[in-house]
Amino acid sequence: MSIGESLQNVIGGFPEARGVALVGMDGILVEEQKTVGELDLQTLGAEFSGLVKSAEAAVESVNPGPSGELVMVSENATFIVKRVTPEYFLLLVSQPDGNMGKGRFLLKRAGERLKSEL
Amino acid sequence: MSIGESLQNVIGGFPEARGVALVGMDGILVEEQKTVGELDLQTLGAEFSGLVKSAEAAVESVNPGPSGELVMVSENATFIVKRVTPEYFLLLVSQPDGNMGKGRFLLKRAGERLKSEL
Repeated sequence: MSIGESLQNVIGGFPEARGVALVGMDGILVEEQKTVGELDLQTLGAEFSGLVKSAEAAVESVNPGPSGELVMVSENATFIVKRVTPEYFLLLVSQPDGNMGKGRFLLKRAGERLKSEL
Repeated sequence: MSIGESLQNVIGGFPEARGVALVGMDGILVEEQKTVGELDLQTLGAEFSGLVKSAEAAVESVNPGPSGELVMVSENATFIVKRVTPEYFLLLVSQPDGNMGKGRFLLKRAGERLKSEL
């Protein structure tokens, strides 16, 4: 399954999704799938790559161990970040009323598939 | 209800909780309740105050609107951050297999109670 198909599977199974992207830890977007045209996943990916590093540093100091997920709920959107490899992560943006459990599940599954391709 | 009682309610309703704290956005811990003695909520609170600011800045650029929650799942623990006021947030640390939905619910309820006291 191609990267694009794996991303499309996430969007297809999650009606509240606005977009999903595979992003490098350097902030560079590898591939994206969107349902909302104006969603700027490029900028979000760059912002979240920095955030993931900060988050890992924050917990590393007192609670060592690999981190897996970061979820941010704002009034206008929900952001779910899932680490795929040390170099790449998935970013899913959905409506704020989206089913977070479903989004996490789909992102985890896509991550497991993509891991072998990266 | 005092701050300590509100925090105790979170811990009491959530068996997987390790500790919960009310923290200022300056990183200073106001009050804490713990079930695991060695949990360093002071250091975590300071780390997460910086993280909350970074996270808000990250989404603000493309998706303006107040942010409410930040969840981080690592292999060894789950961290849930809930903004209470512009100056304060709640930080809940639980076992990684904890019921995240229950944790979010209890934290939200405690936040609503505390809002009037701060």
